[in-house]
Amino acid sequence: MTGLFFSFDGIDGVGKSTQMELFCEWLRDRGHDVVQCRDPGGTPLGETLRELILHRQDTPISPMAEMLLYMASRAQLVNDVIQPSLQAGKTIVSDRFLVSNVAYQGHAGGVRVTDVWAVGAVATEDIRPDLTLMLDMPVEQASSRLNRDLDRIEARGAEFLNRVRDGFLHEADRSPDRIAVIDAARDIDTIQTEIQGLASRVIEAKGLAEG
Amino acid sequence: MTGLFFSFDGIDGVGKSTQMELFCEWLRDRGHDVVQCRDPGGTPLGETLRELILHRQDTPISPMAEMLLYMASRAQLVNDVIQPSLQAGKTIVSDRFLVSNVAYQGHAGGVRVTDVWAVGAVATEDIRPDLTLMLDMPVEQASSRLNRDLDRIEARGAEFLNRVRDGFLHEADRSPDRIAVIDAARDIDTIQTEIQGLASRVIEAKGLAEG
Repeated sequence: MTGLFFSFDGIDGVGKSTQMELFCEWLRDRGHDVVQCRDPGGTPLGETLRELILHRQDTPISPMAEMLLYMASRAQLVNDVIQPSLQAGKTIVSDRFLVSNVAYQGHAGGVRVTDVWAVGAVATEDIRPDLTLMLDMPVEQASSRLNRDLDRIEARGAEFLNRVRDGFLHEADRSPDRIAVIDAARDIDTIQTEIQGLASRVIEAKGLAEG
Repeated sequence: MTGLFFSFDGIDGVGKSTQMELFCEWLRDRGHDVVQCRDPGGTPLGETLRELILHRQDTPISPMAEMLLYMASRAQLVNDVIQPSLQAGKTIVSDRFLVSNVAYQGHAGGVRVTDVWAVGAVATEDIRPDLTLMLDMPVEQASSRLNRDLDRIEARGAEFLNRVRDGFLHEADRSPDRIAVIDAARDIDTIQTEIQGLASRVIEAKGLAEG
């Protein structure tokens, strides 16, 4: 694999979309051939499953089944988009990836965390981000910034989202080389500068490794 | 778990539905509280996914994503139907279960067989049939008995289905106590008599173990 793979993660409302856009612009300015995607989504199957998971409130879905639906969407995304892009030397920037399942369905949803990682390794054929940028802020602050109707998962409330946030922080603590916690309660430019600094180190390390 | 769990498996056209109906009648006559289900399916989520997997020919689905969609459907079925029924002492009879994924997406589809079993153990929380009745006959003979339009998977042709059949036989060979191969190229009553004999032994063994 010659390409680079970045993902943005964290609870909703922390400013992922804004930071991702600025980051992709910065990457393009530096000559990267950037492919943006979102997980779940990014393929016809993925978008169908995204709709099913997030908006079909009439269909009961257990945390285990939910986790497996995300995995199916992700398997198709890896197969159709991520793997071919990385092989072609492109830079992938994904809105969420596997660690979201670990936090939402694992730490917060009650599915065994080791099982989520194990199924994830199968579904992605062990392809994982070179760096996950985990935007973090208190749940109350993030939720107050969402000025739209809540989807099925957001609607689970503050207690659930606090478990999700703790799950993300726990995983970052376990894998500090792969998951960077970014304090997202600061101004946009300060956050973006930190992200670019972290990404630069990954880009340089990969360049040296291949050089 | 006090209930009993039987599944019927094999390629399409071998006579699963006919044998399942007769078997359920026989179980009911012996006083079993029978719950019939089909996998994929059996829940609102499962039926939505069944439709997506088998009939939405316009949505590309990789073998890995397909395997994970079956697993999501199965997780919901175990959660909503199979686990509560077994706990209540009922007898489950399922049209297909996990070994189908092992044969279709694993042996025939190219997903690593150990990965399918591993994801299956997570999805089902290790609940598996006490006995799988694997109806077997040559692919050409089974296909000629299907007088309807082929679904997405049946349409893959004889070469694919021969790999599926070989996969089933391989798994039965590995687990002879759990998967019985039934020669389905015989008359209906002879097959049913063999099935009832095999099931009787499982029912008695379970009764003794609990007695």
